[in-house]
Amino acid sequence: MGTDTTAKAAVTVLGLGNLGRAVAAGLLRDGHPTTVWNRTPGRADALAAEGAAVAATVAEAVAASDLVIAVVVDHPALDAVLDAADGAFAGRVLVNVTSGSPDLARKAAARIAGQGGTYIDAAVLAVPETLGTPDATILFSGDPEAYAAHRDSLDLLGPGRHVGAAPETASVYDVAVLAGMYGMFGGFFQSVALAESSGIAAAEITDVLVTWLAGAAAVLPQFAREIDAGDYDTDVSTLNINQWGIAAILAAGKAQGVAFDSLTPLKDIIDRQVAEGHGGASLSRAIESIRAEAQ
Amino acid sequence: MGTDTTAKAAVTVLGLGNLGRAVAAGLLRDGHPTTVWNRTPGRADALAAEGAAVAATVAEAVAASDLVIAVVVDHPALDAVLDAADGAFAGRVLVNVTSGSPDLARKAAARIAGQGGTYIDAAVLAVPETLGTPDATILFSGDPEAYAAHRDSLDLLGPGRHVGAAPETASVYDVAVLAGMYGMFGGFFQSVALAESSGIAAAEITDVLVTWLAGAAAVLPQFAREIDAGDYDTDVSTLNINQWGIAAILAAGKAQGVAFDSLTPLKDIIDRQVAEGHGGASLSRAIESIRAEAQ
Ligand SMILES: NC(=O)c1ccc[n+]([C@@H]2O[C@H](COP(=O)([O-])OP(=O)(O)OC[C@H]3O[C@@H](n4cnc5c(N)ncnc54)[C@H](OP(=O)(O)O)[C@@H]3O)[C@@H](O)[C@H]2O)c1
Ligand SMILES: NC(=O)c1ccc[n+]([C@@H]2O[C@H](COP(=O)([O-])OP(=O)(O)OC[C@H]3O[C@@H](n4cnc5c(N)ncnc54)[C@H](OP(=O)(O)O)[C@@H]3O)[C@@H](O)[C@H]2O)c1
Repeated sequence: MGTDTTAKAAVTVLGLGNLGRAVAAGLLRDGHPTTVWNRTPGRADALAAEGAAVAATVAEAVAASDLVIAVVVDHPALDAVLDAADGAFAGRVLVNVTSGSPDLARKAAARIAGQGGTYIDAAVLAVPETLGTPDATILFSGDPEAYAAHRDSLDLLGPGRHVGAAPETASVYDVAVLAGMYGMFGGFFQSVALAESSGIAAAEITDVLVTWLAGAAAVLPQFAREIDAGDYDTDVSTLNINQWGIAAILAAGKAQGVAFDSLTPLKDIIDRQVAEGHGGASLSRAIESIRAEAQ
Repeated sequence: MGTDTTAKAAVTVLGLGNLGRAVAAGLLRDGHPTTVWNRTPGRADALAAEGAAVAATVAEAVAASDLVIAVVVDHPALDAVLDAADGAFAGRVLVNVTSGSPDLARKAAARIAGQGGTYIDAAVLAVPETLGTPDATILFSGDPEAYAAHRDSLDLLGPGRHVGAAPETASVYDVAVLAGMYGMFGGFFQSVALAESSGIAAAEITDVLVTWLAGAAAVLPQFAREIDAGDYDTDVSTLNINQWGIAAILAAGKAQGVAFDSLTPLKDIIDRQVAEGHGGASLSRAIESIRAEAQ
């Protein structure tokens, strides 16, 4: 019926939670022969109605496609799936979307290699609603050839980037980016708590905060360049000025009885840099105090 | 020479550091008779060349204009300026741009009232480069009539908003918004530290982070609405999922020897909510744990 005469590659999706269902639905929409499996069988029904083949076992699902995408809740769940695969990954490529730590990505890669398969780690910086749109960012790491071979199918998830051949690299990006997000969320709660302590509603302060954060985020690439270059000369945001600013916030929180303090760790590294005589340098130089303590 | 026949109001600027010079220059550009004073006299020279009247003393500077804008480094410096004013603020309006805590704003307001003047607090959410542009946000609090009377002059600083009649309200917004920014900055250092521990350059992770933060910031108004309504039903970002995510980040940081932890305070309030049985509620419900502990 369509005008597309290219045969689309077969793909299997293991795990049909919120994200897995969105992945499978996108593949079906794009015309890929799609096999699905989920621990709790009922969750596959709607996808079956749209044309998905429903596999009864993990091994059967993995056997159905060269490319297998796993989207289960966590690494223990992934381990259970790999146990059930019973060697079926031989000659297959597993793209693991399940979030985890770099460590766990390395372990999963070794397990897949042990079955004679190829492991690719994927960090999906998206929510189900943005999957497959330009607002998603999908980072892949692991075997570059396997990634290149399946790129057509994987690009369906959204704008993709291969960030390294080591299996864990995508996972490092993932945790690092989420760490940055949680920092912002912690700042949000700090901000709302301070505002509420003076009777200002969350929506009122958030309105101002969101605008301000957009401007402040624009400074981060400059900080990153200073960090990579090790050149902390600045005429904008010195450690001295930020030391004063962050101390004022902590004092205000204390004076107003706010029972949340997410800023002391940042204050500590700023204080350390100033104490070492770098007060006139850029705020970005605080990274040096973190590096100095790293084990 | 110009076509503007409206007489502009006289304005005095006390303090000619980076921000004070930008304020005075903007007033001069807009045709306001502008009087300036700075502790260290040389800093007024360029402004004098552009038409500013340079006052020899604080009292003389304050006497010159109904509207006085103070932009000194901190509240001890403001106190020194108010000491030197020697009663000159009687009948004058002081707009205090000097950053400080809500507490200090209240104290400064009382001192000005004691001289028979009117106090307005201003929170300048801008840098000298964005002052007077739509990218600036200027929040004012204190006497609403005095603000209305001088609005024409004050709008020169950038889009302005009067946020409350209490003198300290603008300062609360200021510290709250800056707290949110420092949260984001802490998250940035957390992110870079994690990335560096795996050999990923700061610029590489920041590139991905900045895009992700823009999307994540878009969720904050939703969180704020949930908080104000006390209705934490969600189908997006539950406490359960975030508990898992933040624990994974902390574990990765530990495994990779990262010597910076800005996320434990957020983890603690998430853990507390989950322990109280609210794991299926929105992440925004973490505010309840902060409120519960507030003094
Ligand atoms: N949702 C997002 O926006 C998003 C974004 C980026 C990354 N991720 C990551 O993607 C993964 C899935 O997220 P999600 O939102 O889809 O989660 P979800 O809706 O909770 O779905 C979890 C899935 O894992 C399966 N599962 C759980 N334990 C299992 C086990 N022991 N054996 C086999 N399957 C098991 C569940 O099967 P049952 O139906 O049988 O319970 C379900 O299919 C997570 O690692 C998440 O961090 C999600
Ligand atoms: N720069 C910004 O982007 C920005 C943005 C928002 C808010 N603010 C706030 O605006 C205020 C000024 O910032 P800035 O960047 O202009 O600072 P700055 O460049 O360091 O200038 C400080 C000013 O304070 C004066 N001063 C210091 N101690 C004094 C004292 N004891 N008595 C009288 N004057 C004294 C200095 O006079 P001398 O020349 O004699 O030293 C100078 O004019 C601060 O509270 C800052 O937090 C700044």
